[in-house]
Amino acid sequence: MHRDLGNGVTCTELPMNDGRTIRYYDPEQTARTSADQRPKEDPAGIGDMRLDPLLNEWIAIAAHRQTRAFLPPKELCPLCPTTGELLTEIPDSQFNVVVFDNKNPSFNAPTGEWALPELNGTETPVTQAAGKCEVVVFSDLHEGSFGTLTQGRMALVMTAWRDRTRELSKIAHIVQVFPFENRGEEVGVTLGHPHGQIYAYAYLTPRTEKMLQIATQHHQKTGRVLMDDIVAREIRDDVRVIARNEHWVAYVPFAARYPFEIHVAPLVGVADLAALSQDQADAFPAIALEVLARLEGVFGLPMPYIAAWHQAPVNVGRDVLRLHWQITSIRRAPGKLKYLAGSEAAMGAFIMDMAPEQSAEQLKAVKL
Amino acid sequence: MHRDLGNGVTCTELPMNDGRTIRYYDPEQTARTSADQRPKEDPAGIGDMRLDPLLNEWIAIAAHRQTRAFLPPKELCPLCPTTGELLTEIPDSQFNVVVFDNKNPSFNAPTGEWALPELNGTETPVTQAAGKCEVVVFSDLHEGSFGTLTQGRMALVMTAWRDRTRELSKIAHIVQVFPFENRGEEVGVTLGHPHGQIYAYAYLTPRTEKMLQIATQHHQKTGRVLMDDIVAREIRDDVRVIARNEHWVAYVPFAARYPFEIHVAPLVGVADLAALSQDQADAFPAIALEVLARLEGVFGLPMPYIAAWHQAPVNVGRDVLRLHWQITSIRRAPGKLKYLAGSEAAMGAFIMDMAPEQSAEQLKAVKL
Repeated sequence: MHRDLGNGVTCTELPMNDGRTIRYYDPEQTARTSADQRPKEDPAGIGDMRLDPLLNEWIAIAAHRQTRAFLPPKELCPLCPTTGELLTEIPDSQFNVVVFDNKNPSFNAPTGEWALPELNGTETPVTQAAGKCEVVVFSDLHEGSFGTLTQGRMALVMTAWRDRTRELSKIAHIVQVFPFENRGEEVGVTLGHPHGQIYAYAYLTPRTEKMLQIATQHHQKTGRVLMDDIVAREIRDDVRVIARNEHWVAYVPFAARYPFEIHVAPLVGVADLAALSQDQADAFPAIALEVLARLEGVFGLPMPYIAAWHQAPVNVGRDVLRLHWQITSIRRAPGKLKYLAGSEAAMGAFIMDMAPEQSAEQLKAVKL
Repeated sequence: MHRDLGNGVTCTELPMNDGRTIRYYDPEQTARTSADQRPKEDPAGIGDMRLDPLLNEWIAIAAHRQTRAFLPPKELCPLCPTTGELLTEIPDSQFNVVVFDNKNPSFNAPTGEWALPELNGTETPVTQAAGKCEVVVFSDLHEGSFGTLTQGRMALVMTAWRDRTRELSKIAHIVQVFPFENRGEEVGVTLGHPHGQIYAYAYLTPRTEKMLQIATQHHQKTGRVLMDDIVAREIRDDVRVIARNEHWVAYVPFAARYPFEIHVAPLVGVADLAALSQDQADAFPAIALEVLARLEGVFGLPMPYIAAWHQAPVNVGRDVLRLHWQITSIRRAPGKLKYLAGSEAAMGAFIMDMAPEQSAEQLKAVKL
């Protein structure tokens, strides 16, 4: 299947050897016909979800993931293009950006009629780990990360994120779409090739559920959107703002949780990536490039990070929750990481070792 | 000051060089008079707390902790006894169990009249990081962890935990008392000497607040205590129970979040450590020893873990929340750790790589 996404960008969808789908995003008309030459395989199964009744939170059990590839060398990288020597996840011999269904998904399409069970303490039934997991490959070059892409390539990734948000939001059981990038072995990255992922959940994640509850209360009390107030405060305070352009602002949040934490938000708030105007989307690569260069420049070392797109859920809270990109790094100094230990991991109570203003100062001082 | 804690155990409190207090817990009358010979120092200051308005959660900012001791060699260990060569945090030349105020506390006694500000979004004022942080040293031997102690020593640590819970609960601004142990460099431990910590918070931590909300709803709906239902289910299912004695049960919870997660609960539920009967307290060392030996035996390697005592808050929820000891390990295989990456860290949505029954099976199979 071939779709025109505007601005000359096209998306070509092709089947993979086990029934999964791969999508090539190209900045111009490109013939994508290479077939997956690997032997036919059975599709991945679906795991279970169980309710943790102490917290009313769903836990997905993806037992088959234990065996997934662990930091394979370049010659065996499943995210590189297919060559005469190696048949990878991507059948073509060159590509720009591809998004394919994860081979070892934590969440998958449920079989039969499916609905999330009601929460009923220890009586809550086990259910299928419904949802969808996708891999977003940023480049056919094996080295790099999102921050090393050209602005043109970042724009193409943004187009892919927006398209996938739109498409995944149409699936009946999906209630939340979460594009993210894990970067660095320190946060558990098992494939070095520059890539991100998309998790589409069939339940509201704990963080989003809490943000929704608080933003709803704030809206009822003040008539205002909480995130708009937050962005206004950051701009007013100015001291934690580390980058700005016509459409976006990047800041270390007032109450950051990590030694380096940056939020990037559009100046005119929107619910999700799909709702961005084309001008907003076009202005993103410039600020993303600056933010990631500042982060990388702080210690002159590759920074482990998690870059997370927080979006309003598909069906609820779209008038009170706002899109923002949250980057968190656990590196607090060269050779020192912040660990989530007793207080953070067991109680959710965060202790920051440096003032957010100090962290912002270090980021602003980086010479670009 | 000298207090008799029953069963012959005594607690002797002495001042430290910067005004902090050290408490010696001894299984029999022991003269503790050694003075802190280090130069007088100013007491540690108090940091700030700021509200993260997106989640209505307090973040403590402890900027002075950046410089704390990082894995010092034995010759410089601040938790070893004081010798002719080294003046440590513990002035005596031998000790059993000591609890002293943390030198670099994340939370401290507030100055002046203090109350937690009301939550008011971005308008919420910055406040003092009120609370108290203590260090619990399990032994004067430099090597080991809680699991390598004798049962007699574990009983003395239990007495200290119970005493500190009782005493800290009396402080006006303290609303929650949290004894825990971080074990292993993989979870960020900076001192190898066997020790734990106690955080006494002036706000309900996010996990406790959520547990309280859910347990309260459950009680209103069913008239039952949620944790009692959970323990009953685990005993009924049996397959995840890994250890039991007359007063305690240890199980991998039905919806575990970590490759190895064990909850240890008294069979007759109580609100906190102070509320345990003496029989319950006396029966704890045997099950603790077994649980930690099983955990250590799974891979025959030291296991990094966080061992967290969840207690009912000081003033609320004491009829619906129950004491339990939660041990979580991020080691999923020899040489492999589970990292909290995108889904867990940014969304709070946990993916488990193995079934809890599989993890329980491995723990039960350990030959003791």
